[in-house]
Amino acid sequence: MLRRGTPVSRQPTGVTQPGTPSTSSGRQQLKVITELLPVGSEGNGHMVDITTEVGRVLKKQKLQFGTVTIFVPGSTAAVTTIEFEPGLQKDLPEAMEHIAPSEGHVYKHDQTWHDGNGHSHIRASIIGPSLTVPYTNGVMTLGRWQQIVLIDWDTRPRRRDIVLQLIGVTG
Amino acid sequence: MLRRGTPVSRQPTGVTQPGTPSTSSGRQQLKVITELLPVGSEGNGHMVDITTEVGRVLKKQKLQFGTVTIFVPGSTAAVTTIEFEPGLQKDLPEAMEHIAPSEGHVYKHDQTWHDGNGHSHIRASIIGPSLTVPYTNGVMTLGRWQQIVLIDWDTRPRRRDIVLQLIGVTG
Amino acid sequence: MLRRGTPVSRQPTGVTQPGTPSTSSGRQQLKVITELLPVGSEGNGHMVDITTEVGRVLKKQKLQFGTVTIFVPGSTAAVTTIEFEPGLQKDLPEAMEHIAPSEGHVYKHDQTWHDGNGHSHIRASIIGPSLTVPYTNGVMTLGRWQQIVLIDWDTRPRRRDIVLQLIGVTG
Repeated sequence: MLRRGTPVSRQPTGVTQPGTPSTSSGRQQLKVITELLPVGSEGNGHMVDITTEVGRVLKKQKLQFGTVTIFVPGSTAAVTTIEFEPGLQKDLPEAMEHIAPSEGHVYKHDQTWHDGNGHSHIRASIIGPSLTVPYTNGVMTLGRWQQIVLIDWDTRPRRRDIVLQLIGVTG
Repeated sequence: MLRRGTPVSRQPTGVTQPGTPSTSSGRQQLKVITELLPVGSEGNGHMVDITTEVGRVLKKQKLQFGTVTIFVPGSTAAVTTIEFEPGLQKDLPEAMEHIAPSEGHVYKHDQTWHDGNGHSHIRASIIGPSLTVPYTNGVMTLGRWQQIVLIDWDTRPRRRDIVLQLIGVTG
Repeated sequence: MLRRGTPVSRQPTGVTQPGTPSTSSGRQQLKVITELLPVGSEGNGHMVDITTEVGRVLKKQKLQFGTVTIFVPGSTAAVTTIEFEPGLQKDLPEAMEHIAPSEGHVYKHDQTWHDGNGHSHIRASIIGPSLTVPYTNGVMTLGRWQQIVLIDWDTRPRRRDIVLQLIGVTG
């Protein structure tokens, strides 16, 4: 992991140097695993940090090298990474107001469906519903100040069943 | 799939509960499959819903668990998910005008290349050319109102050969 | 690869036609490979083209069909594709000023941490830290004018150790 204030990180924990690739061998078993992660959100740009839960699934399944795809079903929520701290939890939704304002603009979506969440759809589509994170030696290659978050752009509380799809090899 | 108007979805079809992971066993065969999906677009933010076509490839290949990566070659188009309905098809391009306006701004790209699509490139890079969607029991874990779309930001009609790369196991 | 000025590309090099999928067979070996790509950046929206380096890893590992996930650890950098030319290298950061301006706005993040890079975090989260690119016959399915880039949004020079995670089959 990268440390805050360390401008040059030698390398993330558990990642091999260039020229020393980690390759699956005959003894390793490739697995494809799906788990559902239920998350409650308050909506309106509420961010939920799911890093710990994703790491727990990885550990439980004993996968060493591969990728985990984090995907949120639904068209008003998104998945990305961010430094999960209170300031940015306000700053990011505020910035999205410049693209798709939550007030003072009439969306064609809302003229048809009258659910008042046109801006939620647009924000979700721009940030996107899926994220793929590599892991090596059983640890995701995230920076120290980089968390995996669900951002729920809908205008009301929702339950989201996030899909975790892991493809990788055991040690 | 999630149903519109159902605030709390129990779980997407075909996705296992936490604690009951779907694991590939010895009898299952892992496949890596590539298919090309040719799509004609009108450009200028035209969205094309390719959900049905992606699902058809999945079914044909009899893959049960894994991921499909949808990737658009080219630097003026993007792939994401959205509720595919006429209102949002207008609202999203309109919102992108706030970031990279199609008129009234001189892009350095256009000063060099004179193809007038500087805004197309920027929009494509922000939304991104790739999307990874999990599937379980042969069905993509999309929400009910969530479709996979190509958005063509170029300023003229184009043909796009979308790449579908599937990695997964048979049943 | 797609050629500039060719409106309709027949197909990217090395991609099979629909109906003629490329399937892994018994003789092929599936590999999961991780490599680290160290990249120095100047920050402030500096873009670094890493396409050649990713292609080199692919060739070295002799992978024919599969995906490569490009992931940047850290919360102030992003990965995407773009036509890598000097004009767009200026145009994209300029467009991001409309969303998260680098000056004249007080971010809550900066009020707490005083590192002056609130806008860097927001831009990184919107564009995203990961990208998944398919390859067929050992060649990535990129368009001719589409390069893979790291964009470093931080406010100072950084070294980034980009993670390349390849899952695929040998020929």
